[in-house]
Amino acid sequence: MKRGKVFVISGPSGVGKGTLCTELMKLYPDLAATTVSVTTRAPRPGETDGVHYYFRSDEEFDRMLAKDMFLETVDKFTHRYGTLFSEVERVLAAGKNVILEIEMIGGANVKKRIPDAVLIFILPPTLSALTDRIVGRGSESAEQIRIRQAQVETEFDQAKPYEYFVVNDELDLAVERVKAIIVAEGLKADACDVKKQYFGR
Amino acid sequence: MKRGKVFVISGPSGVGKGTLCTELMKLYPDLAATTVSVTTRAPRPGETDGVHYYFRSDEEFDRMLAKDMFLETVDKFTHRYGTLFSEVERVLAAGKNVILEIEMIGGANVKKRIPDAVLIFILPPTLSALTDRIVGRGSESAEQIRIRQAQVETEFDQAKPYEYFVVNDELDLAVERVKAIIVAEGLKADACDVKKQYFGR
Repeated sequence: MKRGKVFVISGPSGVGKGTLCTELMKLYPDLAATTVSVTTRAPRPGETDGVHYYFRSDEEFDRMLAKDMFLETVDKFTHRYGTLFSEVERVLAAGKNVILEIEMIGGANVKKRIPDAVLIFILPPTLSALTDRIVGRGSESAEQIRIRQAQVETEFDQAKPYEYFVVNDELDLAVERVKAIIVAEGLKADACDVKKQYFGR
Repeated sequence: MKRGKVFVISGPSGVGKGTLCTELMKLYPDLAATTVSVTTRAPRPGETDGVHYYFRSDEEFDRMLAKDMFLETVDKFTHRYGTLFSEVERVLAAGKNVILEIEMIGGANVKKRIPDAVLIFILPPTLSALTDRIVGRGSESAEQIRIRQAQVETEFDQAKPYEYFVVNDELDLAVERVKAIIVAEGLKADACDVKKQYFGR
């Protein structure tokens, strides 16, 4: 069975990558499988360990970190979330793709451990579109916008290992572009392997 | 302006690559521009030199060959056809893609002169599907099929520089796959170039 691929979706905060990933999976659920993450938060009613999340204590999470078991981790408020390397490997081996929506530095780390991971950078239509969205959140002054733009410039400097750049001008178009990348990457193959499939040698 | 890319569509004869290219351009005319080829055949009524073809004599065609002006040439019956390197370069510089449907060895040659050319190999659903089509043409015996399969195996050996492999099981699906490759390849970029577009430095 042909191995799946990891697709890392990154981009400056406010660019809409979360919405893009959600919409992509809603429209094309067969494109990729979801992985079960580890979290330090308590299960909510109806949530099952190993199905919705692996619910682990802070101490267990620390031990997993020390053992380098995570492909990436993220802190949200007082809780931590992590994607297990073993979990991703299991899905890839089953021939399914994995989409990971992660921060910039995380993308480079994934590439180190999974060299054929495909890194996709989501771009705003313009730089001001990005800060406009932040202003829309009503939390930033002119000075804060200047600082934010400098941050974005730094984020762009970290985009070096990213191969694909998708402008999120309209959600529908951006979803179709990311879909095209995932489909096209699935069509890449080695000529020798293809020949073997047809001729058995 | 972002430069276009050359997409080479190749595959064993009888795989349906001609139909695939025609359908692709009919459904998605904006994906790529057409180039004007050189031919040694006489213009038909209504055909204009420089619009439909560059109509040239056999001697002129030989001179152009000697000057290495062709990206690829093909013989059809008593006439010759050639794609001019300068013509392709002109279209690419204008930011348009070029699709070239060519024989296997031609693909490797294109890659030598245009290193970022994207080579796509069209595959039959099965090896027998390929020879069945030939039998359908009513021109081959069992022995001829064996010879044909050996030829196809040789063609596969030449597929090494090809990066993408598209199975032509159903025309509609195959067209969408090739379209995805062209869209995805257009989204590849260098992080530094992208940054310059946003920050001007």
